[in-house]
Amino acid sequence: MTSPQSRPLKVALLGCGTVGSAVLRLIGEQAHDLTARVGRPVEVAGIAVRRPDHHPDVPQHLLTTDAQTLVTREDVDLVVEVIGGIEPARTLILAALESGKSVVSANKALLADDGPLLHATAAKCGVDLYYEAAVAGAIPLLRPLRESLAGDQLRRVVGIVNGTTNYILSRMAETGAGFAEALAEATELGYAEADPTADVDGFDAAAKAAILASLAFHTPVSAADVYREGISAVSATDVARAAEIGCTVKLLAICERVGNGDGDSVAVRVHPAMIPTSHPLASVGGAFNAVFVEAEAAGQLMFYGQGAGGEPTASAVLGDLVAVARNRLAGASGQGPTGYANLAVRPIADTPTRYHVSLDVADKPGVLATVAQEFARHEVSIATVRQNGHGDAATLVIVTHSAPDSALSATISALRDMPAVRGVTSVLRVEGLS
Amino acid sequence: MTSPQSRPLKVALLGCGTVGSAVLRLIGEQAHDLTARVGRPVEVAGIAVRRPDHHPDVPQHLLTTDAQTLVTREDVDLVVEVIGGIEPARTLILAALESGKSVVSANKALLADDGPLLHATAAKCGVDLYYEAAVAGAIPLLRPLRESLAGDQLRRVVGIVNGTTNYILSRMAETGAGFAEALAEATELGYAEADPTADVDGFDAAAKAAILASLAFHTPVSAADVYREGISAVSATDVARAAEIGCTVKLLAICERVGNGDGDSVAVRVHPAMIPTSHPLASVGGAFNAVFVEAEAAGQLMFYGQGAGGEPTASAVLGDLVAVARNRLAGASGQGPTGYANLAVRPIADTPTRYHVSLDVADKPGVLATVAQEFARHEVSIATVRQNGHGDAATLVIVTHSAPDSALSATISALRDMPAVRGVTSVLRVEGLS
Repeated sequence: MTSPQSRPLKVALLGCGTVGSAVLRLIGEQAHDLTARVGRPVEVAGIAVRRPDHHPDVPQHLLTTDAQTLVTREDVDLVVEVIGGIEPARTLILAALESGKSVVSANKALLADDGPLLHATAAKCGVDLYYEAAVAGAIPLLRPLRESLAGDQLRRVVGIVNGTTNYILSRMAETGAGFAEALAEATELGYAEADPTADVDGFDAAAKAAILASLAFHTPVSAADVYREGISAVSATDVARAAEIGCTVKLLAICERVGNGDGDSVAVRVHPAMIPTSHPLASVGGAFNAVFVEAEAAGQLMFYGQGAGGEPTASAVLGDLVAVARNRLAGASGQGPTGYANLAVRPIADTPTRYHVSLDVADKPGVLATVAQEFARHEVSIATVRQNGHGDAATLVIVTHSAPDSALSATISALRDMPAVRGVTSVLRVEGLS
Repeated sequence: MTSPQSRPLKVALLGCGTVGSAVLRLIGEQAHDLTARVGRPVEVAGIAVRRPDHHPDVPQHLLTTDAQTLVTREDVDLVVEVIGGIEPARTLILAALESGKSVVSANKALLADDGPLLHATAAKCGVDLYYEAAVAGAIPLLRPLRESLAGDQLRRVVGIVNGTTNYILSRMAETGAGFAEALAEATELGYAEADPTADVDGFDAAAKAAILASLAFHTPVSAADVYREGISAVSATDVARAAEIGCTVKLLAICERVGNGDGDSVAVRVHPAMIPTSHPLASVGGAFNAVFVEAEAAGQLMFYGQGAGGEPTASAVLGDLVAVARNRLAGASGQGPTGYANLAVRPIADTPTRYHVSLDVADKPGVLATVAQEFARHEVSIATVRQNGHGDAATLVIVTHSAPDSALSATISALRDMPAVRGVTSVLRVEGLS
C-alpha cells in the first residue's frame, strides 16, 4: 500500500540522446539521494523518442513515440525536455505547462526564441520552468544570476559560452593556424559538428546571450535582439596581432547595462574580441566555458566549468529537477519575476565599443597625422598607437578608446579608402582593457 | 489604507558595522527592484546595536539596544544577523527562529560551531536559515552546492577561502619575503587584523571548510572536526621550493569524499599546500577567494570572486533576503535536508595526502638508497626525486605518491633522525598534481 505522501514523483523524459540517456542513468544511480533531497522517490514514467528501436538499452515498456500524450498524462508530475530545437519542443512544453506539469528544459534555442511566452504560460499555470542546462552546461549560472544576486544590480555579464569556437581559437593561438585549418582539426576530433554553422557563426552563443541578458537585467531579450558576428573571419594575423599587444582572441557573449540620460538600456552582442591575457577569461582554454559577472555590490565574479557534454548537462538538469520537485511538494512555484524592468535593447550602432586596428601604410611623414585626423573626424579618440617601419612601408597598430560602434565602423570604412593606407590588415573589437 | 497583500515585509537588522550598514544602504537603494523581485516592499523595522551614539548616519528611531525584543517583535518577518561571533548571535538567532522569523546570517563561526542545532530549530519552526555570506563573501557558492548540484554526487571541494592568508602567500611568492615580513605589510595595508590569529592560524578557513563539507556531503561537520594548520610556519624556502617544481603555495580548505571498504567517509582539512601553477586555483591572487568543485557528472567547476568586504558580503545577504522573503510569501520553506547522509568524518592520520620534502644530505653514494628505503619502510611510494649536488652536500627534492598522512609524517620524523640527513629544509603537502 502506498500512501499519497510517499507516492513517487513521476517524470516524463522527452528525448533520449546523449543528454537524455545521462539523465536517465543519473536518476537511477542517485535514486537514494534524490529521495532524500526531494522528500519522495523520483521515477521515470515514460520516455518519448522518435525511433524506439534505436534505444535497446532503455527499459522498453517506458518508450513511446507519442510525446503529446505522455506530457499530459494524469500520473506525470514533471517533464524533462532534452530534444532541442524549436518544434516539437515548444508545443510539447506548452502542453505540459498547460496540464500543470513543471518543466525542466535544456533548450537554449527555444528559450532564446520564445522565452516570454513560455514564462508567461508557466506563471499563468502556477508551475515552474527551469533551464539551467541551456547555458554553460554544468556551470551553476542561471540560478546564481536569478537568485543569489537578486539583491544586487548587475552591470555586465561577459561569457565564453561556446566550446567549439573556444577550442578553435585556442588552437589558432597555440599553433598559428588559420581558421579553416583549426576548424578541420576540431571537426576531426569531434569538437565541431559536421555542419558547424550554429557554433562558428555565433548563433549558439547569441541564444545563450539572450537568455543571460534576460535574467541579468529582468528584461525580455530574444536571440533576434542580439548583434552577432562569428569567428570565420578571424585570421591568423588577428591572433598574432592580439599576442603582440598582450591580448588573446575569444568569442565573447557580452550583456551590458548601459546608462544614458533617458534611463538605462541593455546592449547584447556576440563577437570575437581581443582581451588582455591577464583577464580571468583569457586563460579559459579548449572546450571549457566561463562567465564573468560584474555587479554593483558583489564586484567581480567568475563561474567556470564544462559547457557541454552529456554528463555535465545532465547534472544541471537534475539540479533543476530536484528544485521543481521540491517546489511541487511545497505547493509553491520557485520562479521569480522575469521581465519587470523591461529596459530598451540598444542597437549595436549606438553601443560603446573599442577597436584594435592594424594598418599597412606608406612610411613617409604626415601619414600618422592623416590617419589620426580620420579618427578625430568620426569623434573616435585613440588610446595607443604603435608604428613599426619596414623599408618604405610601416605598420600602424591603433587601439581606440570607447566610442559608438557605428563611429568606429565608419572610421574603418574611411581608412580603407585613404590613398596613404595600403591595407587594413586586422580589425577586432577589444574588451577588458582598463 | 494598506491591504494585507501589500503590507511590507519587515526586517530586523542585528549589527550595523561594515556589513550591516552596507545591507541597510542596499535595502534603501534597491527598494524598487526588491519590491519587484519579492512581490512586496521590504522595510527595515529596527536595527540592534550596542552603542546607538556610534551610528549617527542611521535613522535614529530604528536603533535599539534591545536585540532580544526586536527579534521577537510581532511585526518583524525576517531577521538579518551580521554581528558575528558565537554569543549573543546564537541566542538571538534561536529566539528569532522560535518566534517564526526566517533568518539570514553571515556568521561562519556560529554555523560551523552549532549548525545542526540551528538547522534543526529552523526545520522544527518551518522557517528558513540562509547563510550564503558566511563562506566566500559575494561568491554564490552555498546555493549552487545545495541546489544546482543537488542531482549530482560531489567528490571534492577545494577552496581558497581566506583573503588575508592568500594576500600574504601571494606577496611571499612575488617578493621572496618571509612570513613575518609579508604579515607586517598586510597589517599595514589593512589586509590583516591587529590580532591576525583567526586568519593566519587557519581558524577562519576551518569554519568555512566545516560549512562547505556539511553542505557538500549532507553530513554534519563542525569546526572541531576539521584538521587545521595555519601559514605561520611557511618559509621563504618553502615558497622557493614550490616555484622550482612548478607549484605555488596556497592555504587550502579541502573537503573530500573518501571511499573505502566500509562505505564512504568525509575528510576535511585546512593546511598550506603546493599546487601546480597550471591549476585554476593557482592564479587566484591577493584578497580574492575561489572554490574549485569536482562532481561525478558535472566534472570540474570553479567559483571566483571577492571573499570579504562590506559591499560584497551585503550582496550575498540581500540575495538570501530575497529568497527567504519569497519563501515566506509562498508559505514554503526553501531549506533542503542537510544531514541525511551522515557520513563518518575521517581523522587526518587516515586521510590520503601527498608530500613534498626537501632534504640536505651528504653527497656520497648510497644516501639516496638509504633515504628511499625509509620511505619504503613506511609504505610511502615516491613519485619523483631530484638530486642536486653542491660540494660535499646535495639537496634531495622528493614528491611522494598518495599515502595515509600518518605514514607520511612518521617518515619525516624518521628522516630527521637519519645520520645521512643533515637537515629537512622544507615539508609541505602537495595537492592537484596528477
